[in-house]
Amino acid sequence: MNAQAGTVKTEGEDIIISTSKGGFSAKTESGDFSFKVSGKLQWDYAGMDGLYNRADDGTSKDKSTGYIRRGEIKFSGKAYGDYGYALKLANDDGDIKLDNAYLDFYHLKPVKVRVGRFGPDFGLENSVSSSWITGIERPAIYDVLQGDSTNEYGIQASMADKQYTLSAGIHHSGYKDEKNSDDDAWGFNGRATVAPIMSDDMLVHLGANYYNSNIDNSATAAKNTTKVGVKKGEKVKLFNAFVADTDVEWGFEGAAQFGPALLQGEYFKREVSVKDSVQANADVDLTGYYVQASFMVDGGKRSYKKGAFGKPKGGQWEVFARYTVIDVDAEAAAEVIAGKDAEASDYTVGVNYFATKNVRASLNYVSGETNVYGSGAKNDDGSAVVGRIQYVF
Amino acid sequence: MNAQAGTVKTEGEDIIISTSKGGFSAKTESGDFSFKVSGKLQWDYAGMDGLYNRADDGTSKDKSTGYIRRGEIKFSGKAYGDYGYALKLANDDGDIKLDNAYLDFYHLKPVKVRVGRFGPDFGLENSVSSSWITGIERPAIYDVLQGDSTNEYGIQASMADKQYTLSAGIHHSGYKDEKNSDDDAWGFNGRATVAPIMSDDMLVHLGANYYNSNIDNSATAAKNTTKVGVKKGEKVKLFNAFVADTDVEWGFEGAAQFGPALLQGEYFKREVSVKDSVQANADVDLTGYYVQASFMVDGGKRSYKKGAFGKPKGGQWEVFARYTVIDVDAEAAAEVIAGKDAEASDYTVGVNYFATKNVRASLNYVSGETNVYGSGAKNDDGSAVVGRIQYVF
Amino acid sequence: MNAQAGTVKTEGEDIIISTSKGGFSAKTESGDFSFKVSGKLQWDYAGMDGLYNRADDGTSKDKSTGYIRRGEIKFSGKAYGDYGYALKLANDDGDIKLDNAYLDFYHLKPVKVRVGRFGPDFGLENSVSSSWITGIERPAIYDVLQGDSTNEYGIQASMADKQYTLSAGIHHSGYKDEKNSDDDAWGFNGRATVAPIMSDDMLVHLGANYYNSNIDNSATAAKNTTKVGVKKGEKVKLFNAFVADTDVEWGFEGAAQFGPALLQGEYFKREVSVKDSVQANADVDLTGYYVQASFMVDGGKRSYKKGAFGKPKGGQWEVFARYTVIDVDAEAAAEVIAGKDAEASDYTVGVNYFATKNVRASLNYVSGETNVYGSGAKNDDGSAVVGRIQYVF
Repeated sequence: MNAQAGTVKTEGEDIIISTSKGGFSAKTESGDFSFKVSGKLQWDYAGMDGLYNRADDGTSKDKSTGYIRRGEIKFSGKAYGDYGYALKLANDDGDIKLDNAYLDFYHLKPVKVRVGRFGPDFGLENSVSSSWITGIERPAIYDVLQGDSTNEYGIQASMADKQYTLSAGIHHSGYKDEKNSDDDAWGFNGRATVAPIMSDDMLVHLGANYYNSNIDNSATAAKNTTKVGVKKGEKVKLFNAFVADTDVEWGFEGAAQFGPALLQGEYFKREVSVKDSVQANADVDLTGYYVQASFMVDGGKRSYKKGAFGKPKGGQWEVFARYTVIDVDAEAAAEVIAGKDAEASDYTVGVNYFATKNVRASLNYVSGETNVYGSGAKNDDGSAVVGRIQYVF
Repeated sequence: MNAQAGTVKTEGEDIIISTSKGGFSAKTESGDFSFKVSGKLQWDYAGMDGLYNRADDGTSKDKSTGYIRRGEIKFSGKAYGDYGYALKLANDDGDIKLDNAYLDFYHLKPVKVRVGRFGPDFGLENSVSSSWITGIERPAIYDVLQGDSTNEYGIQASMADKQYTLSAGIHHSGYKDEKNSDDDAWGFNGRATVAPIMSDDMLVHLGANYYNSNIDNSATAAKNTTKVGVKKGEKVKLFNAFVADTDVEWGFEGAAQFGPALLQGEYFKREVSVKDSVQANADVDLTGYYVQASFMVDGGKRSYKKGAFGKPKGGQWEVFARYTVIDVDAEAAAEVIAGKDAEASDYTVGVNYFATKNVRASLNYVSGETNVYGSGAKNDDGSAVVGRIQYVF
Repeated sequence: MNAQAGTVKTEGEDIIISTSKGGFSAKTESGDFSFKVSGKLQWDYAGMDGLYNRADDGTSKDKSTGYIRRGEIKFSGKAYGDYGYALKLANDDGDIKLDNAYLDFYHLKPVKVRVGRFGPDFGLENSVSSSWITGIERPAIYDVLQGDSTNEYGIQASMADKQYTLSAGIHHSGYKDEKNSDDDAWGFNGRATVAPIMSDDMLVHLGANYYNSNIDNSATAAKNTTKVGVKKGEKVKLFNAFVADTDVEWGFEGAAQFGPALLQGEYFKREVSVKDSVQANADVDLTGYYVQASFMVDGGKRSYKKGAFGKPKGGQWEVFARYTVIDVDAEAAAEVIAGKDAEASDYTVGVNYFATKNVRASLNYVSGETNVYGSGAKNDDGSAVVGRIQYVF
């Protein structure tokens, strides 16, 4: 009646299986063939006020809500050494969506070629897994950048050594070319990082990012709103929709890790221009940055690999503070507030408890403000407290 | 060319794997780490008439339809002994939705703390897996209760010994607090069960349930309709929407198992009140119960664990009969029929064949009636025949 | 801290696991119990013009777009020898849907009985896995047939030996019976194939298909459009919607494989009639066929099993050409163009590279035309180039 009592074998090369963290993997001894089930669960609870729950009439009420921030399951594997794949399903509230879906080719080692649907390499904190970012949410500046667009179709070549990474790709940009054809519009992006100092006591990381979507004659601008650092906050529109001609972004990363202390910052510049024949005086000049300091209270440090920081070993507490600013100089037609730069900023302080290698609890306080609602309106600032419990398998 | 021919090993603690029932599990010998893929498929075919396929104009035609009642896949596991998770994807007709998504903490053994998205403990037949409930559908009284709300966000502490269970939690209630804030509204629920007699020949089960959502000043009432015991039946509205003040529910369970014979019943009382300042005379007083008798024709019996009955060993036939009543005394403003209690009831008879531990076939006949369409309307009763084939892996 | 270092065992019958192709399977030595995770990723990029991107006003622009054609994950297994199941999730652009969900019963060996949601057996190229069809898309004639309706609820009995297959089933047809009841409408379908010649050098395959949906008094016709061989092409309507009485389809298959060369063709006839009392002169008489020649450039050949061709061994190139025609003789009320048959046809040429057993790259050129837009309209022909990279696990 029961299907158990004996040995487990295979008909080919030896296989090594693992269930550490509560997930599952099986790989052949050579590593040429493998299969893995992994995933994550993040349960958040947020309370917020002011601009984070602002109604269209400018009033605001307190709001609190619990939600599954991420419920993801990923299947990945490798065959014949040279071919890999990943298929990730993720929740969007109660719905399940296709997230990543890509193929990897290792024929040109050390260069890896990836095609399909995946997020391009762009930015330091964007390159960190959403499980191990420092704050509960990434810095708000990413809200208004195209270069990190999540899960678009594309092709990317990348290589990484211990102390540097190089990555370049083209991705469907979210814009649509409407002049002569219905082609998908594409954006080019590249990222280069180097760790010139890398010792047990000290690590210095530097990086640069470039994105260029030469749209030529397109429709509505993408990514013109921010939630000022809070996932369930209301969207704040920083500039009006417009017909874009080019969209170019630059980003610079820097980080210095001294054992348990980590200083990190990124600066981004985005320039969107419009042919005057289409819409006069509608160029957008956006700059933004964040600076962040974190400290592992019990010692230990975050890992560093492939141009991104990872998780600590488990059993540690971390505290951090971050200040983020976005400034938009939009010309007449693209402006939200006449004659002034649109601004949004927030400071976030928080504490992380890494219970084990795969379980984490976090508590963040976010205080944000913006000038886009004009001087007479209420609720141009707000605050939020967000908690998270996370399990990665 | 082929990746097989040898041994299967692991780099840590010994692992035990299993594929019984056609699912898969791997766990370390200590049980501290584990991974499991499980799921279920239920294919139903239903024919119905009368109120089960009633059009708005009061007419009805015969209807028959086949459908996947449940297509579910669940990933669950454990790490470091103290941490568990589950992520379940389930179909809603052709769509795939996030169903359960929760974390378990075992630090306070024997108390288990669960956070995330899951159905609260509430009621006896509601605590039985949908794979092993006696009828094809649970008793209709659950349609109009809040306490068993499925898959809401919450936190719950529970403990269970051989002869008792205790559980208490708070869950997002489906109501929304609109007075002073946009907070999620919460409901408290608790369940306690005891099996005072538990021998080979006889088992007596008793239980009580409590639910309280102190909404204070909320919007539309939730759960005011029933399908009178048939999944694909039309919804029957038992009372009108209203602005609720408090929503309190009590439930009492009783069951007696004498070998193959099982008698079971539950009684529920729900009281919803509305501040007179908002809507006068709109309180709702709902009562409902069901009684059920089942018998394993070939002997054997259903298992009993953690305050709920389970599956038999396989290879058995079971017959059952159930009578369910819902009675709603709604005051003026909340009434569907003036001056009378709204009533709905059904009796269901059925046969189950448990072919193996994981395969089941069921056939149910349901005859239901209601008075809510008024004395002059047609189709205030109806009947349905529903068949199911089930595979649990 | 880590969960590894030892042996892998089981508590019952010996288990054999495999991770070939990057998927995973575990089965007991007897094969009575098993579990498998499999799936596929197809990333397509298409450029098209003319009728493939025709606007309602008859104009057309060039269009190019990349997309995940198929992102699928399937869980399947077996228990107690006689019971099997499969549950497949598939993407529909960014959404994840329930695809197949069925149970298999092996009690009547060699007859297999399948119930649930699955595609019926109908047609030769339709019986080939979407991973190993010759072109990137199946011949356009399938667009306007009911017999191959994908993933409808039904029951099917089938048996297969080395040289023949027999299959018969009833499936929910997509039509809805509206005369006396709201019953699901059902269609019967059957397929029989034989391989009278089957040697190392030569294989001849013949087959016949029948479909009959005796709808009696139903609503809108299903499947009256085609995309003329290009997935992202615009739909071309070949006849108007109508109220159908009966829908009968015949299909004939033939194929001859001489080592690396494979000639293949299918002819289909569909007759839809309408009771004159409902709509006079609205019968539809549809015929269509395709012929296809393919050649493995490096030698080798496609496998043949259960009445369908499969994949080659890997490491081979294949070239092919296919011509497809659809002709619709619709009487007055069902016509799109007055007094003439509606026609659509395409020829497709392509090359496939089967890098390994599970990785494939394909490039197709499709040139199609139709007369349904009338003689005065532009864009009654068009062409497309479609590329695909595929990973099957």
